[in-house]
Amino acid sequence: MINATTYTARAHTNIALIKYWGKKDEDLILPMNSSLSLTLDHFYTETSVTFDEKLSDDLFFLDNQKQDVSNVSTFLDIVRKKANIQSKAQVYSTNYVPSTAGLASSASAYAALALAASKAAGLELDKPSLSRLARRGSGSACRSIYGGLVEWQAGFDDETSFAYPIKMPNNFEICMIALIISTNHKKISSRMGMKRVVETSPYYSNWVESSKKDLLAIKKALAENDFKTFGEISEENAMKMHALNMSAHPHFSYLEPDSIKAMKIVEGLRLQGISCYYTLDAGPNVKVICLKKDVSSIVNIFSNSFGHEKVLVASSGPAAHLI
Amino acid sequence: MINATTYTARAHTNIALIKYWGKKDEDLILPMNSSLSLTLDHFYTETSVTFDEKLSDDLFFLDNQKQDVSNVSTFLDIVRKKANIQSKAQVYSTNYVPSTAGLASSASAYAALALAASKAAGLELDKPSLSRLARRGSGSACRSIYGGLVEWQAGFDDETSFAYPIKMPNNFEICMIALIISTNHKKISSRMGMKRVVETSPYYSNWVESSKKDLLAIKKALAENDFKTFGEISEENAMKMHALNMSAHPHFSYLEPDSIKAMKIVEGLRLQGISCYYTLDAGPNVKVICLKKDVSSIVNIFSNSFGHEKVLVASSGPAAHLI
Repeated sequence: MINATTYTARAHTNIALIKYWGKKDEDLILPMNSSLSLTLDHFYTETSVTFDEKLSDDLFFLDNQKQDVSNVSTFLDIVRKKANIQSKAQVYSTNYVPSTAGLASSASAYAALALAASKAAGLELDKPSLSRLARRGSGSACRSIYGGLVEWQAGFDDETSFAYPIKMPNNFEICMIALIISTNHKKISSRMGMKRVVETSPYYSNWVESSKKDLLAIKKALAENDFKTFGEISEENAMKMHALNMSAHPHFSYLEPDSIKAMKIVEGLRLQGISCYYTLDAGPNVKVICLKKDVSSIVNIFSNSFGHEKVLVASSGPAAHLI
Repeated sequence: MINATTYTARAHTNIALIKYWGKKDEDLILPMNSSLSLTLDHFYTETSVTFDEKLSDDLFFLDNQKQDVSNVSTFLDIVRKKANIQSKAQVYSTNYVPSTAGLASSASAYAALALAASKAAGLELDKPSLSRLARRGSGSACRSIYGGLVEWQAGFDDETSFAYPIKMPNNFEICMIALIISTNHKKISSRMGMKRVVETSPYYSNWVESSKKDLLAIKKALAENDFKTFGEISEENAMKMHALNMSAHPHFSYLEPDSIKAMKIVEGLRLQGISCYYTLDAGPNVKVICLKKDVSSIVNIFSNSFGHEKVLVASSGPAAHLI
């Protein structure tokens, strides 16, 4: 028996530096390789959940618009099963992630939903359990349970696949500058893209092995306070992910002409001595990892080339929390 | 004893559809995988060679400009050794390959040099022997000994690594449209690019295996008169090659913003029912394989987007020959 109590959670999105790109279990959302991300401060989702015996169906509102509830209901079913309840729920979400930014709003969305729904259902989950639960909604959401740098260990089953925080080195004032290149809906979703790559890329098995090495190397760079190596590994890992897409059958790519232009600008800045590195996800937008001291130079150059309204800045953000 | 007789040869450049991208022997220029190309009619090199006992050094003129002779001398040493002569030679070359076109002038250059120099040295080489000899100058030159479609079998030593012609299907009026995107000298030469990829890409071994499959599949498509499959395999093979570059350490890419723009135009034309497929080599220029009947539509679209002076058209060209 549940009181119709409302819980509201806020979770921040994250940007992967060692990428998650391929599942070994589509249903449980177990990834092929472990990944590493940075949770971002300025981009988040707030979600309120109320389980109510009087409801005949789940309801889901996003940014005040009623939405198709099927994915949310599938997720709530997992929560209901854990809590041993039957009540339907109302879910109200507000995205403070610009939906055009290619900043994986599904990560913040399912992390916030996992926290709010589990509390509303009367569950008291520890963070690894919350992370596992969020993972069932969207893989990358398991990382948004934590702030700062986060590792998602691939694991081998539902129990062993969850995220945990990684110590941020002292004096590592990481920032991320997102350049919004396209607001078009992507033709090939992350889910479809990674599935095609797993099934058809001749390079896939070597991606998995290579990403394992990249993860070890990036953690070593973190332990050694080595931002340059940290950035280089991030950029190379992203390029290997995009190379997979080009090697799939049929091949595809998220890169647009302006993605290439922005990548070349970043390479040019490095030649001028600025430590900055790009990464791209399932879309054309270019995200630049840099140190706080270099943000204004990079923002200026991007603003001059693409317009200042296309340039967003974030830094390390907090863990998912109730509000 | 050689008379100072001059021989002049013309050889046409070629465009690889299954790419050569990596050597297993840097000195002999033995490739990691077999490749397949189309020799082009409008782009060629003419080279005259005269061995002359009175010369104290080799001389090399390209387009009426005296050049550093060291690479040519190294190649002539192979010819002199085969012919058992010591005379130095004069070499006059004219390139009818726009040097800005990224159309591998080294292929036509060394094919023409191999034919003219071997004749001038008194050798009567059959075509496989000429192909092996040209290969020592530049790998892809071994394919320019023949016209039309040509396979370079990788082989395993100097004797077994040479090219031979592949039957062009009836009614296969293949054309190639080259879009000149950049006239800048490339930062990473083919030689450096493929070397880095062989040494550092985690995907390299799978590229070799995948290209072997592509070669079998493209020859099947040729045997079945299937231009669509022929084009699709060509495009996917090119993308897998460019994916290798993105996966190298340090990563690199020959793609420019306009390369992506042109690739998207070709993809758009396919959605309109035009069978056209792109390929790119060690540079940003986009080459489109299509049938003769579709040339004018594609040329028009490229001319409108990039300027007609950037668009070159070629079709299947002849074997290297004396003139």
